[in-house]
Amino acid sequence: MTTVGCIGGGQLGRMLGVAGIPLGLSFRFLDPSPEACAGRVGELVVGDYDDPAALDALARGADVVTYEFENVPVEAAVRVGAVPGPAALEQGQDRLREKELFRSLGIPTARFGSLEETGLPALVKSRRLGYDGKGQRLVEVPEPLGEDGLAEELVRFDRELSIVGVRGADGETRFWPVGENVHRDGILRVTRVPAADAPKREAEAICASLMDALGYVGVLAVELFDVGGRLLANEFAPRVHNTAHWTIEGAGTSQFENHLRAILGLPLGSTELRAPCAMVNLVGFVPPLVELLGLPAAHVHLYGKDEREGRKLGHVTLLDPGEETAETLVALASHENEERRGRGQAPRPRG
Amino acid sequence: MTTVGCIGGGQLGRMLGVAGIPLGLSFRFLDPSPEACAGRVGELVVGDYDDPAALDALARGADVVTYEFENVPVEAAVRVGAVPGPAALEQGQDRLREKELFRSLGIPTARFGSLEETGLPALVKSRRLGYDGKGQRLVEVPEPLGEDGLAEELVRFDRELSIVGVRGADGETRFWPVGENVHRDGILRVTRVPAADAPKREAEAICASLMDALGYVGVLAVELFDVGGRLLANEFAPRVHNTAHWTIEGAGTSQFENHLRAILGLPLGSTELRAPCAMVNLVGFVPPLVELLGLPAAHVHLYGKDEREGRKLGHVTLLDPGEETAETLVALASHENEERRGRGQAPRPRG
Repeated sequence: MTTVGCIGGGQLGRMLGVAGIPLGLSFRFLDPSPEACAGRVGELVVGDYDDPAALDALARGADVVTYEFENVPVEAAVRVGAVPGPAALEQGQDRLREKELFRSLGIPTARFGSLEETGLPALVKSRRLGYDGKGQRLVEVPEPLGEDGLAEELVRFDRELSIVGVRGADGETRFWPVGENVHRDGILRVTRVPAADAPKREAEAICASLMDALGYVGVLAVELFDVGGRLLANEFAPRVHNTAHWTIEGAGTSQFENHLRAILGLPLGSTELRAPCAMVNLVGFVPPLVELLGLPAAHVHLYGKDEREGRKLGHVTLLDPGEETAETLVALASHENEERRGRGQAPRPRG
Repeated sequence: MTTVGCIGGGQLGRMLGVAGIPLGLSFRFLDPSPEACAGRVGELVVGDYDDPAALDALARGADVVTYEFENVPVEAAVRVGAVPGPAALEQGQDRLREKELFRSLGIPTARFGSLEETGLPALVKSRRLGYDGKGQRLVEVPEPLGEDGLAEELVRFDRELSIVGVRGADGETRFWPVGENVHRDGILRVTRVPAADAPKREAEAICASLMDALGYVGVLAVELFDVGGRLLANEFAPRVHNTAHWTIEGAGTSQFENHLRAILGLPLGSTELRAPCAMVNLVGFVPPLVELLGLPAAHVHLYGKDEREGRKLGHVTLLDPGEETAETLVALASHENEERRGRGQAPRPRG
């Protein structure tokens, strides 16, 4: 039986497992937590990501090793011979190198560098280890950036888009439709596809040029700002991505299955849209399952994680949703709704 | 976390698990084999189906217990309080009672009983424990039926159809589109949906009347003969069914998810067709994954079982397939093809 190792045992690993078990694949995950939610779909090696013994235990007998988050230590990826290769990690883990890579490929970005280069106000981000809006601050008057700080022009964008693509072992690339994303508190809340009037070809060209430059194999996502129809690349993620979770039901092949196909050298599957989708994240709490499943054409994905403020606990994809259904779901998933429940109503069962 | 127990740990249990993990469910299976393929998606209790201690271990702490095959001992189902309830097992495990139930509900069947009642030639089947064509013989001259034998009129049917429905805890019923099935050597090979010009309402009425009569909760399948547009019920199965595997990709909600929703008292999901499908079983051997995944819109499901003559090892669903693609898949999956490979070509890697 073919065994896939995965550095990280969170929900992305779990969804890789759910996609791969029907292909006859067996999974093994490395995660520091014995509660890692991917443990339900494969063997769990509990250990640190930089622990050579744990990494060797992950890789032993595995046909391929991949990863599900972009802050995997590069040495760890090298040690296990991870696919995608370490180049994407090296470039993506440092915001400055990431932006410089965009620039070197002729991909437009917001201005970046020092505050002199960006002007004010600017966003100052830590170069390393930021995600979900962590490690960012808005700067309105000149101040020292610090050793790890990188300034970025504060872009007044019309909307946030993302393009997610897959590149096979033979260099073939395919792209899912462009998604339109809504973040709150730095966390993705809603993705809708297809994004209306999206500059699809430009987005695909950006993603393709990155994947080709990195000699990439697997799924890669690029977050984009749409400024009056012009695309600025914000960042990329060398992995399956929250903005493409809708592909499980909404596309010919899900991002999870195509990532597995790519890293195993198998033919890629269709990335065509099967139905317009709205994907809503469940952040911090899970509404009652009976309410979620009562929505028409709702596909519920819970990650089996304990509730905690700001934590992604699941997502729901609506196929071909009416506005009313989408609004109901967004309300169900919102904190306001949780607080109302908490104050005035009977205790809410956990999903 | 909600835990579902399941008597039987074969591919149907495994696919229940794959469908239920995204709902945040946890699974436990009872199976005599430590190799039972559902063990990959949940805890496996190894024991006999009539072993009280094993049954208690299965049921301990489970929120609901179901089953994935129709020959579960009735006492076992009673002991664990299984859903669907034991009535369907009692009626379905004895071909004579099954036919009498059809008759009592006004559901047409082939003639059955003694050879005098059926005429000759007739099929003589064992009343108990037959499946996939086992325990059947064609009788052309009068002979004793034996204590366990039941004669059935040999019906010259135009095609085999099946109707699969789900009944919720509140009595609501929903039905997937009628499938047209091709068997060979008594084993299902291909299901196509929707069956052209199928008497859909008649099929649904048969399924509904059975489920209502049994006070049924969960998914139930009825195999039907189409004789010049008139339907004869052949047999029913009180469980998720091979002829509805296409629902994973081809319907608004899969039979597996809707079975779980029903037995947990959750709202049922849409059974609408999303795309015409051809589902092809992989029997006895698995063609190379690279060939299966190379087919357009192919969704591959391997069960993780060792190859053995006549054993169902997986299935492939084609969405909206052209005739050529469907024929290629049928050829890939056929024994003739395997034999050709075996004789003339390089060793075939296992999928």
